[in-house]
Amino acid sequence: MEALPRPVLIVGTGLLGTSLGLALRRHDVEVLLRDRNPEHLRTASGLGAGHAYAGQPVGLVVVAVPPDHVGAEVARALAETDAVVTDVGSVKTAPLLALGSEVGIARYVGGHPMAGSERSGPLAATPTLFDGRPWAVTPHSRSAEAATLAVEELARLAGASVVRLSPEEHDAAVARTSHLPHLLSVLVAGRLADAPHDHLALSGQGVRDVTRVAGGDPVLWQQIVTANAAAVAGLLTQVRDQLDVLIDAVTTGDRGSLGEILERGVAGTRAIPGKHGGPLRPTASVFVSVPDHPGELARLFADVGEIGVNIEDLHIDHDPGRPVGLVELVVEDTAAEDLRAALETREWVTHR
Amino acid sequence: MEALPRPVLIVGTGLLGTSLGLALRRHDVEVLLRDRNPEHLRTASGLGAGHAYAGQPVGLVVVAVPPDHVGAEVARALAETDAVVTDVGSVKTAPLLALGSEVGIARYVGGHPMAGSERSGPLAATPTLFDGRPWAVTPHSRSAEAATLAVEELARLAGASVVRLSPEEHDAAVARTSHLPHLLSVLVAGRLADAPHDHLALSGQGVRDVTRVAGGDPVLWQQIVTANAAAVAGLLTQVRDQLDVLIDAVTTGDRGSLGEILERGVAGTRAIPGKHGGPLRPTASVFVSVPDHPGELARLFADVGEIGVNIEDLHIDHDPGRPVGLVELVVEDTAAEDLRAALETREWVTHR
Repeated sequence: MEALPRPVLIVGTGLLGTSLGLALRRHDVEVLLRDRNPEHLRTASGLGAGHAYAGQPVGLVVVAVPPDHVGAEVARALAETDAVVTDVGSVKTAPLLALGSEVGIARYVGGHPMAGSERSGPLAATPTLFDGRPWAVTPHSRSAEAATLAVEELARLAGASVVRLSPEEHDAAVARTSHLPHLLSVLVAGRLADAPHDHLALSGQGVRDVTRVAGGDPVLWQQIVTANAAAVAGLLTQVRDQLDVLIDAVTTGDRGSLGEILERGVAGTRAIPGKHGGPLRPTASVFVSVPDHPGELARLFADVGEIGVNIEDLHIDHDPGRPVGLVELVVEDTAAEDLRAALETREWVTHR
Repeated sequence: MEALPRPVLIVGTGLLGTSLGLALRRHDVEVLLRDRNPEHLRTASGLGAGHAYAGQPVGLVVVAVPPDHVGAEVARALAETDAVVTDVGSVKTAPLLALGSEVGIARYVGGHPMAGSERSGPLAATPTLFDGRPWAVTPHSRSAEAATLAVEELARLAGASVVRLSPEEHDAAVARTSHLPHLLSVLVAGRLADAPHDHLALSGQGVRDVTRVAGGDPVLWQQIVTANAAAVAGLLTQVRDQLDVLIDAVTTGDRGSLGEILERGVAGTRAIPGKHGGPLRPTASVFVSVPDHPGELARLFADVGEIGVNIEDLHIDHDPGRPVGLVELVVEDTAAEDLRAALETREWVTHR
């Protein structure tokens, strides 16, 4: 394991930069901060994320500025210091192309922590933001291996788990696992925008799940999608081709073709790694009817806590016009009957 | 409120039919059961869902058979009895067209409870399956009002809340809120099926949410989509037109056009009724870091229970390669700071 080059200079004290400073301070790493917004810099420093940068020598520079400015700030850091330079932007090939044959390019290795929040700015920061999250580290063809190891050590010290990918692989991966799902979710949600209100009364958990991410900030997503245009457009075009096949199958009643598309979707859901990183374990759901006031849900949580079965996921579904909600507890399928029996013993009304 | 015509004959003792029998028995309604599968009939009867039908006069017939057989069973019930007839199928215009000018058509009023399970058959049944769920009741132009009121009373006795729609409106509504989201989720999941494993390591909660429903039974979804082909194909065609605009915007870097599409998605997510049926209330998330073993999650549930804040939704996110999971607690935004402070007092590491 490479030692982390120190001190670390963080350029940009928004949510990510300040959180990274706080995370590194847990390990007593010396952190310096720079921001063109003096108020952000004071806030981040006041929170204990590091001290204001005054031009002293540094070992590692982390560029944590909005997507549109990453290229320029990386170039500046390479020119003004001898340090290893990384960034935390969500797209990796575009900034690299912008750098071209910048002097010191061997010292630059991109990075992308899979962490964020709907809030922004230093006041939203927390030292635990990266805990347990994947952090993509993306060396390019001219990166020095020592620089790559330094950036990987940074990610580990921040609490994340390292996934090493080339910049091109990274951008293809996030186009598929993040940008495409986001845009298709947006198209489904767009079809709801002018639906009659009483039609939307039939909305269940399914449409809520599919459209949740479509509520994300349009300005941020404009920048992300534009910066990864080639990979995103390629996938969207594949989806359009599939959509043509699907429309044809639905219109002509071709159940065979429809079945193939549906089966491929099932295969895709199984390809997503399990939440623990291993293969997806089979799960089962136990539904519990819960009268819709705070005391009852609290009592359920307390009982589930005492029973001690490992809950993989949990959904709460209150339906219109009824004082009863449904809580779906997702557990390993071998544990479902035990959980259900234990809840029934405690007089909960359950079903599977 | 119309009295429920009795006894009730349920045709088909699968998950829905048996659950309905159990739900009605809670109110001491006399329930008779018919099924061409004698084992299902014995099981349902043994569970207490009702007694085997022997040709006696009935007041209301509920057809609860697979989509492909609904039309024929409704016609048979209208011909063999003088009862009000309804069904619980997920599409409403196709069976009605199949009935044509059947004698007694005024006694038929379709229905569709928004309830189900990934399991099927009478052993999966439960009297609480319909509790708190919407139940669409779909009178047509020749339905008698008394028949409609009888079916609405059935839905209420089963524990559901009634949403009255025409068959055409119903099919348009479920095409938009269920069938379209399902099919688009399938197309996103299909793009994951042959992705490199290390690309999928970057999968976060977003892609998991968008693709969850794509894991549903392809055989059932073939029948549902085919039965609602016109409404589904119409919406898919609208999505294809939007997709063409989107591909063009991404390819040419047209941020204005991209922004319009993204804003429309945000508007769509806001159009979905709140889980309590009222307008969507603004929510905020509190994230809690939880060491990944059962005792810790149990302790969190117990503490959240004691704090007693109303939890709107909850997600559990274990990430690869790390012994720490993140639990996202979704609450009304005015309650988020109180919850966070209360959890910090109990020594949980939180952020927003």
